[in-house]
Amino acid sequence: MAKEIGVSLLGLGVVGSGIAQQLIAKEHTYTQQVGSKLVLNHVLVRDKNKNRDIQISQQLFADSIDQIINDDKTDIVIEVIGGEEPAKSFITQALNSKKHVVTANKELIAKHGPELISVARENNVRILFEASVAGGTPIIAPVLRDFSGNNITSIKAIINGTTNYILSRMSTENADYFEVLKDAQKLGYAESDPTNDVEGIDAAYKLSILSSLSYKSFVKDSDVYCEGITNISAKDFQIAKELGYEIKLIAFSEFKDNKVSARVHPTLISKNQMLANVHGVLNSVQIETDLIGEVLFHGAGAGSLPTASAVLADVIDISRNISSGFVNLDYMNIDQNASIVEISNLNTKYYIRVSANDEPGVLSRISTILADHKISIASFIQKSSHEGIAELVIMTHEALEKSIQEALNQIRNLSVVKAIENSIRVMD
Amino acid sequence: MAKEIGVSLLGLGVVGSGIAQQLIAKEHTYTQQVGSKLVLNHVLVRDKNKNRDIQISQQLFADSIDQIINDDKTDIVIEVIGGEEPAKSFITQALNSKKHVVTANKELIAKHGPELISVARENNVRILFEASVAGGTPIIAPVLRDFSGNNITSIKAIINGTTNYILSRMSTENADYFEVLKDAQKLGYAESDPTNDVEGIDAAYKLSILSSLSYKSFVKDSDVYCEGITNISAKDFQIAKELGYEIKLIAFSEFKDNKVSARVHPTLISKNQMLANVHGVLNSVQIETDLIGEVLFHGAGAGSLPTASAVLADVIDISRNISSGFVNLDYMNIDQNASIVEISNLNTKYYIRVSANDEPGVLSRISTILADHKISIASFIQKSSHEGIAELVIMTHEALEKSIQEALNQIRNLSVVKAIENSIRVMD
Repeated sequence: MAKEIGVSLLGLGVVGSGIAQQLIAKEHTYTQQVGSKLVLNHVLVRDKNKNRDIQISQQLFADSIDQIINDDKTDIVIEVIGGEEPAKSFITQALNSKKHVVTANKELIAKHGPELISVARENNVRILFEASVAGGTPIIAPVLRDFSGNNITSIKAIINGTTNYILSRMSTENADYFEVLKDAQKLGYAESDPTNDVEGIDAAYKLSILSSLSYKSFVKDSDVYCEGITNISAKDFQIAKELGYEIKLIAFSEFKDNKVSARVHPTLISKNQMLANVHGVLNSVQIETDLIGEVLFHGAGAGSLPTASAVLADVIDISRNISSGFVNLDYMNIDQNASIVEISNLNTKYYIRVSANDEPGVLSRISTILADHKISIASFIQKSSHEGIAELVIMTHEALEKSIQEALNQIRNLSVVKAIENSIRVMD
Repeated sequence: MAKEIGVSLLGLGVVGSGIAQQLIAKEHTYTQQVGSKLVLNHVLVRDKNKNRDIQISQQLFADSIDQIINDDKTDIVIEVIGGEEPAKSFITQALNSKKHVVTANKELIAKHGPELISVARENNVRILFEASVAGGTPIIAPVLRDFSGNNITSIKAIINGTTNYILSRMSTENADYFEVLKDAQKLGYAESDPTNDVEGIDAAYKLSILSSLSYKSFVKDSDVYCEGITNISAKDFQIAKELGYEIKLIAFSEFKDNKVSARVHPTLISKNQMLANVHGVLNSVQIETDLIGEVLFHGAGAGSLPTASAVLADVIDISRNISSGFVNLDYMNIDQNASIVEISNLNTKYYIRVSANDEPGVLSRISTILADHKISIASFIQKSSHEGIAELVIMTHEALEKSIQEALNQIRNLSVVKAIENSIRVMD
């Protein structure tokens, strides 16, 4: 039985500090759980002299990645730098030096997961990445272990805290997007360049990882259709609520007839769904399987300690292996590229908000275009008219995306139509 | 690498049939996942000739438990008979014969979990019981694996489908308990003798298992304070709703100052809590930890295929060990009996509904008794008076259980008071 298990940390930002702090503070309980002592060997940072909240002995700072790679006492490398490079090179070197890797890096795993899993397997070591999806909320281990007897058929999730925070505040305060964004930036919930979050890119990374593991074929981040929340207005929230919906940035994927569809977009979601009641920065992932039906996991999706919790669970899992002298390789077979159903071939319901001249014949012209495209109307609401411009809201039944887009183009070109103010997909 | 892993099944009821059906139908995918073929060797039933929905070859039926215990080809024994005996003897024999055990038996694990875990450990085999709590919804594996870096501080759960079904219907239909119970029995959601469910005993078993694993000390089922739902009336639901609450049977435990408190009772729970929005037969478990805050797991809590899913996850986990030639012992250290805080020493908020003569001085006498017992009133509502009898509802701030009970006794004895119609604990 190994007496000490060496852990080295790449990155000492918000998450890295949380991990280091816990490894130090809970040394005794982790030793009990693992049967060996977890020792923080090295920490790699860009600037050793930076002021930090955490007290770390200067001796722990590594001079270079090579010092860690060449350190025989380091059994596990934790990567919390983020981004593709140098993270990918560092991880690859670590794996090739027979070190286990735990990472929170969603972009890297979304883009290169299968490759890195292969490198780990060739070296008889493990790479785990629970923290890459939904932060502190367990979801990857449950997919790999707890649903192993099931066929997973779909994933429906709120997995970006920033956008859910913004949308929650827009909903409760009846505020507009840019107003709330500014405040979220002040409060540290959104970055100064919020693109990655508000355009759905971050959520797409996470959906790509979960879908690849669930359907056992590689769903690349570029396979995920992606639409952000920047066009959602206070008006859309008002109307959505009247109709019994919330507006959420939903990450959704489905496995059907051996094909995957995966998309991230703002969605009108019925208030009686659990996901409609996920507020603030929290995350929720709903997995549908053949045996269980729907199972939902809900909790903190980011933050220093919640993310540290997920990283530490992976570290302790691997450490138990090392302690008992046997490496338990993970079943993460991601066979090949998934066959992807393009968004244009998907059927969804739509909410369409149109401003048009308040005159006879408008509805007839719009409904003729919809009928021509085989789009059937579930409900039609004429909102108050103002200065000769009426606001019309159309809720459709399920229709082919391609047809919807063609119909929207024709409606937009009608002389009586001022604008298509918004069009948002709907999930009941 | 083992080519075949033998599985024997004790019990072929609703859950057993689901497991057998899946083992047969998904043989190919399970072989892929495990690296060895899972083979159903034997099935033990009381009556081989009983009519069953599932097609099982007569040759699979074992003549006795001994045939399975002595079968060298059986690596894993699945127990889905339920109850203490003969399940306990069968499992003990299996473990002592170096066979791994997977069970869905909550009563057995709640009462004898630590003992059986010890027997397994002595024999270098595993005993897993994911299905014993919340059916298809993963919760035990997450507690053992995903929260391993955390200290778990509390558990708040809806873990009995029957009572949640009854309470959900009482809430939506404004119906009385016995009315809905009868219907639930007709529909198969409640048993003809519903005691185990409606008195909270089943939920107490599950809370005992989860608490023991979470706090690492043995919380016996008899340590769980238990109150059922049979006294809840349509009237209580009406008032609760007016005040912004739902009524749920909540299983709650807490670890504080090295002491555990654990209780199952009807609870007024604020509508903005996720648990208040758990409907029908579904289960939800909310775990609170030092690093993550609250994490909620929500899904099917019973039923043939959901329960089979949890059993199969355990079977596949163990099979991966067998296939790779190494047994990965679980970290389930349940050290000793927990020190338990008695219910009388707990502080909770209360909803108290009193019927009393509609005359001056009633409120003054009741509020004097409460003040004498250091119970402070959060709100007081006089409901409509009928035939000289007024209905009073008192919502208290947190107060000592012992004081509440003493005060209720004194109020009950007031000459102007007709009855204490109900008193229910409150969670905001």
